[in-house]
Amino acid sequence: MTNHNKQIFKLSEINRTQKPRIEGITAIIDTGQGLPTTKDVIESAANYIDYCKFGWATWLIQPKNLLKKKLKLYHSHRIKTLSGGSALEAAIIIGKTEAFLETLKTLGFTAIEISTGVVNISSQEKSELIKKAKQLGFQTVITEVGRKIKTEDAQLKISDRIKQIQTDLDSGADYVTIEARESGIGIGPYDEEGKVKEPFIEEIVAKIPSQKIIWEAPLKSQQLWLITRFGPNVNLGNIRPTDVIPLETLRIGLRGDTMTKFLAKK
Amino acid sequence: MTNHNKQIFKLSEINRTQKPRIEGITAIIDTGQGLPTTKDVIESAANYIDYCKFGWATWLIQPKNLLKKKLKLYHSHRIKTLSGGSALEAAIIIGKTEAFLETLKTLGFTAIEISTGVVNISSQEKSELIKKAKQLGFQTVITEVGRKIKTEDAQLKISDRIKQIQTDLDSGADYVTIEARESGIGIGPYDEEGKVKEPFIEEIVAKIPSQKIIWEAPLKSQQLWLITRFGPNVNLGNIRPTDVIPLETLRIGLRGDTMTKFLAKK
Amino acid sequence: MTNHNKQIFKLSEINRTQKPRIEGITAIIDTGQGLPTTKDVIESAANYIDYCKFGWATWLIQPKNLLKKKLKLYHSHRIKTLSGGSALEAAIIIGKTEAFLETLKTLGFTAIEISTGVVNISSQEKSELIKKAKQLGFQTVITEVGRKIKTEDAQLKISDRIKQIQTDLDSGADYVTIEARESGIGIGPYDEEGKVKEPFIEEIVAKIPSQKIIWEAPLKSQQLWLITRFGPNVNLGNIRPTDVIPLETLRIGLRGDTMTKFLAKK
Repeated sequence: MTNHNKQIFKLSEINRTQKPRIEGITAIIDTGQGLPTTKDVIESAANYIDYCKFGWATWLIQPKNLLKKKLKLYHSHRIKTLSGGSALEAAIIIGKTEAFLETLKTLGFTAIEISTGVVNISSQEKSELIKKAKQLGFQTVITEVGRKIKTEDAQLKISDRIKQIQTDLDSGADYVTIEARESGIGIGPYDEEGKVKEPFIEEIVAKIPSQKIIWEAPLKSQQLWLITRFGPNVNLGNIRPTDVIPLETLRIGLRGDTMTKFLAKK
Repeated sequence: MTNHNKQIFKLSEINRTQKPRIEGITAIIDTGQGLPTTKDVIESAANYIDYCKFGWATWLIQPKNLLKKKLKLYHSHRIKTLSGGSALEAAIIIGKTEAFLETLKTLGFTAIEISTGVVNISSQEKSELIKKAKQLGFQTVITEVGRKIKTEDAQLKISDRIKQIQTDLDSGADYVTIEARESGIGIGPYDEEGKVKEPFIEEIVAKIPSQKIIWEAPLKSQQLWLITRFGPNVNLGNIRPTDVIPLETLRIGLRGDTMTKFLAKK
Repeated sequence: MTNHNKQIFKLSEINRTQKPRIEGITAIIDTGQGLPTTKDVIESAANYIDYCKFGWATWLIQPKNLLKKKLKLYHSHRIKTLSGGSALEAAIIIGKTEAFLETLKTLGFTAIEISTGVVNISSQEKSELIKKAKQLGFQTVITEVGRKIKTEDAQLKISDRIKQIQTDLDSGADYVTIEARESGIGIGPYDEEGKVKEPFIEEIVAKIPSQKIIWEAPLKSQQLWLITRFGPNVNLGNIRPTDVIPLETLRIGLRGDTMTKFLAKK
């Protein structure tokens, strides 16, 4: 809340976490934008962004100089950075896992995503990757559970997802992301229209503390459902950069959908 | 129309209003963008933007300095500015109506939106707000009719909407906006697929001069329907900044959909 | 592929064409953006853009100075430029064809699109336009087959489309675009949900070399289908500027959807 409105809206009274956030995380997905767009989102929304994921392997085919500038800009605003897990999966496929982990560290990413959306590695191999990432000094290790191809994801039982989440956390992961891709359609907790499959989510949070989960929630209807269910400080990922401000108003009750729920009546 | 094409396309012959427009308004919705994006839209489309609404309460959680710069930029291009009505509604809820109206004026907004999308205030209270806004010197007072929550909006009879529109105009409102939210889906004049509910609109314009209405029309299909029905100078709101140029071509017959309708054959 | 990853991902081994591309074209559609956004896409994706189409007649209503700057910027990064075909069609409708062709050349467009999405001209008249454009010195002549209004397009038989494509190529067109509009919904090769009508495409490529076709494919699902069917070097058009990097990762197997298909396992 900026100073000019502090007197009117006592939003500090709302139970919304502040940076650096452990809970109430907003993680954006950067799908390959340039510097003007990056500056735009930083200028307008930096206070409400905790992580920036450079979506899947987009940054791999862009100028190295652009990557450097973007990392620097995000870091100077206390936004942690990570590569999408697909880049690491590609390295796994071609047998260059170790080298690529070190490349990520050398380039300056401060966090890391370890996913198995495409590759078929064992739970134990994933655990070793988590430990290796920890050793290399990444500040935050985020794993992802779920598959990128819809038919494969549909075959993944929720009980197996829960087991994998638990193993990831036991191995040292700081958070586990629930795969919903950039679209949020027909995958993980969302049906073909993007609607929330409530039993899917309830079954997970019956076993896993919801503060350890980052829900990929690209659509507003998904964000609204999760905020209504878990409160303003639910962890949300795959947020489009231009949706950060709209999302934050939704979290704190400054948008019609949540206004009567969160804004204290006098 | 820029000079290099004046000789070829005599678009000045089309009955399209010019700035400052009383009729044929395009009102954009800014959902929290930064300065680079704002400069982009100004540079590329300022001639075709009459109002910029800072969507709901997005600006409230952004740096004050950004707000100041954006207001200045819009004003220097003869674009009137207003806060989304939700911010005022939030102030009403917490009992700070008067103070907030003055804040809006002090910050430099030149127009104002008075809505009842969430709050439950009487028609008379709304009339008093309109009069108060007029007294404070806002150049344009725009009210909004409709509810933000779909189920509540669905219960609002068209006859009651018409009555409210008439009361708002009688109280001094310059225009009345028909609520359709940022999405244009399943609310007001649009069904769950975003399609126009024609009887809804026809019933309203049977009683209210269409020049006094600003139709929220975020989707191209909605813009097309309204332009086809009311002509190039229908008032349209909640236009995304990047859609202004596409919309303007639709208005004047320089897009496939309206070309044979508006472009004079020789 | 930038140098920092060359050692790890030997993407040069993938059969992806490089600039200047004859095959494997990505053609973006600019729907009226300003300079900051243009610089953003150039900085982040210039290597993967071969053509920029200034959508339909958007540029006609924008400042001439903006057009000049954008043309210069695109050309300096070896991106060919063309006006959307609708602008020329509008000139045909008002009887100013010749003058407009010369205007396009004078303004500096390096390529041209000749379409019959709205106008009704004979095959022979279209052939003469192609030849005239060639004479005027446009580097690339792209024609378009299909109609802009859905009901008209639905009436156009595939056999007639093929006949028109052949005539266009025989008259000197370098490529033929299959009309799918900016939306990719309910037109040409796509149904009302944007899904590919496979027989439509198969019937065309049974008669026409696919390298001569540019498929308008604004949606990711369409791009994925076409890449899976025709390989990384299929020609794609009406790509949104912000989708160039995501598309390129899809082409070369650096996104989940195509990773196991294109990335060589070691």
